[in-house]
Amino acid sequence: MSQYHPLSEAEAIEIARTIKDVFPTGEELVSKEIGDGNLNLVFHIAQPATGRSLIIKQALPYAKVVGESWPLSLDRARIESEALIRQSKLAPGLTPRVYKTDSELALTVMEDLSDHVIMRRGLIQGGVYPKFAEHISEFMARTLFFTSDLGMNQQEKKRVVEEFVNPDLCKITEDLIFDAPYFDDETNSIEDHIRDAAEAIWRDEELRLEVALLREKFLTHAQALLHGDLHTGSIFVTPESTKVIDPEFAYYGPMGFDVGAVFANLLLNYAAQEHWSPDESSRRERRAYLLNTIRDTWNLFEKKFRALWDEHGIDRVFRAKGYQDDYMRRLLKDTIGFAGAKTVRRIYGLSHVADIDTIPDATARERAQRLALAIGTGLIRHNRQAESIEDALRIASRAIGE
Amino acid sequence: MSQYHPLSEAEAIEIARTIKDVFPTGEELVSKEIGDGNLNLVFHIAQPATGRSLIIKQALPYAKVVGESWPLSLDRARIESEALIRQSKLAPGLTPRVYKTDSELALTVMEDLSDHVIMRRGLIQGGVYPKFAEHISEFMARTLFFTSDLGMNQQEKKRVVEEFVNPDLCKITEDLIFDAPYFDDETNSIEDHIRDAAEAIWRDEELRLEVALLREKFLTHAQALLHGDLHTGSIFVTPESTKVIDPEFAYYGPMGFDVGAVFANLLLNYAAQEHWSPDESSRRERRAYLLNTIRDTWNLFEKKFRALWDEHGIDRVFRAKGYQDDYMRRLLKDTIGFAGAKTVRRIYGLSHVADIDTIPDATARERAQRLALAIGTGLIRHNRQAESIEDALRIASRAIGE
Repeated sequence: MSQYHPLSEAEAIEIARTIKDVFPTGEELVSKEIGDGNLNLVFHIAQPATGRSLIIKQALPYAKVVGESWPLSLDRARIESEALIRQSKLAPGLTPRVYKTDSELALTVMEDLSDHVIMRRGLIQGGVYPKFAEHISEFMARTLFFTSDLGMNQQEKKRVVEEFVNPDLCKITEDLIFDAPYFDDETNSIEDHIRDAAEAIWRDEELRLEVALLREKFLTHAQALLHGDLHTGSIFVTPESTKVIDPEFAYYGPMGFDVGAVFANLLLNYAAQEHWSPDESSRRERRAYLLNTIRDTWNLFEKKFRALWDEHGIDRVFRAKGYQDDYMRRLLKDTIGFAGAKTVRRIYGLSHVADIDTIPDATARERAQRLALAIGTGLIRHNRQAESIEDALRIASRAIGE
Repeated sequence: MSQYHPLSEAEAIEIARTIKDVFPTGEELVSKEIGDGNLNLVFHIAQPATGRSLIIKQALPYAKVVGESWPLSLDRARIESEALIRQSKLAPGLTPRVYKTDSELALTVMEDLSDHVIMRRGLIQGGVYPKFAEHISEFMARTLFFTSDLGMNQQEKKRVVEEFVNPDLCKITEDLIFDAPYFDDETNSIEDHIRDAAEAIWRDEELRLEVALLREKFLTHAQALLHGDLHTGSIFVTPESTKVIDPEFAYYGPMGFDVGAVFANLLLNYAAQEHWSPDESSRRERRAYLLNTIRDTWNLFEKKFRALWDEHGIDRVFRAKGYQDDYMRRLLKDTIGFAGAKTVRRIYGLSHVADIDTIPDATARERAQRLALAIGTGLIRHNRQAESIEDALRIASRAIGE
């Protein structure tokens, strides 16, 4: 890593110029640093004369949100680019194209998706993505199945586990999702008006037991190569297209963590409709759309995952009668539990979501926050009893009194 | 690995001579190759003039039992020596001392334990080991706890997982314990007189579901650094001392796999008493001794593991009320399930045990085999319902009609 330094815009342009697939001709390139994440520089490099463009993402050796005090290994850039390459092979068309990677500079040069919108922003603006459930279920079913002991050589899988050992980024998840929100921790960021709700969670022993069980799964269950951070800020969409980005948290973990991340972020937006829907009827419609998206995503995911298993399952022991059903039941329970944990931490943990934090009116924001906490804790509490995705949807409906 | 070649006895002596801790003086050394395993050369190097001695264990690049057709990575010698060093630090006095390791030659030079006996042989000969439960429970509690997310830094643990990725030796377990015995597989070695029992197992769907669940745990649950092959052939004993050897199967897996291995091999000896006890009363006494050893080992293991957790637990989330109890309950179930799987494979899988195979009389041998299968399948069937070690002991007692 001796050559590593954060790129200047001029250097970013120089690298971009070497990508002849995108810039075969020599017209002027312009660069803009557009990173709004906490961990990376993101350069958008465009050629105004031709309308062509690409993205250079470079890892920073610390988390911006806490200055240089939270050092992060640059190895995550290797992990991100290797995960992206694997995912693009397993789920073609559902990730950006990768043009070049450089592990010394900790960067990935990839397709510019500026014609897409970050799904979180799209949802806040009321966007509807009719292909999303189809696409994201395809992405998850294929990337999870084919990196698991169900769908790939089990000895080779162990080498892939090794390749994706990712302590620094796992620690962020372990601390900020499965620990801090359940204690009066200094990293929490709690608005005064919901402090009572946080304190109630800190006293809730049933909830803490469930969170301990979920934390254990995250720490020990090397089931599949996860994206590891599959929230709506890691997904670019148009009504016709879905692209999953930013797999720097990739590691071998429990499949339900990825599926639950998608659902949690749809549910956070569901809670945020307290503000974003202009009236009761549009709110009801919007919420029905979000719950239907969850339902469709799960049902399609389960159908696709089972079909992959039936067609490509490599393990004769795993064809035991009843085993696939048992596996899918456990995966559903995990999904619901992780969805709950990922919902709660976004309300008063270190890192919130724009769906809720940008609600200007404090009363509406508080309603949305309490609603999200009711859903999140409901999912955590219920996860081991859940038998159907409808159980999760019912928890979301009941929270708004339906 | 370019310098690798199987050592001659002369070369083994040359290496031994460099170990000045053992051989400070220059008298003649004599070597004897005493390996009775399938995967290694084992040289016993003695200095008749002084009575001093040591062991050199060298990995072979294939499994002897199937000639050169089953190639095995020499990396397992690195894994073995690194595991041995870790275990000797975590459980002082319960492993042989390591004098030297050489990864190019794939060898470990270690303490000679010729004053001990291999426990399998000791048990066959009617030996009694009153300290064994105390020692083996100490070994397991300390090595499992302090390599798990309960007892060590969780980021460092991920690096240790990486260090002990062990595909070749895990494959032996995956194939020979969790797969072949449940199919009419060519690797099985079935005496004609018990073929009907094997065929009944191949048709047993309940059993195959349980085995699939156990196999999944072995493949995915990176709970602790296991010994990985903790049968009574991997344990040296005297009435006063216990030394665990041969951790070449070490990898991060489910804790219950180690504990279950000990219990399975005590139960195989229990079944073999059909022959080894000279009469009904000594048979009863011997079996009571074996069951009491299992009971004591579990109870001591649980007590020690909980005490380590209470004193050294590093994770505040895992102090959630009820979590430790839930963890120990699951560990018991896993132990019972793995004990069952490890019992069944020794009766008609590829690799048997001397306790049973050396019974000369075919009728007594068949009775012992059927008894072991009844116990093994009983444990597998019951594992997820088990609530106490007494459940396992009851299965063993009922199998002999008590």
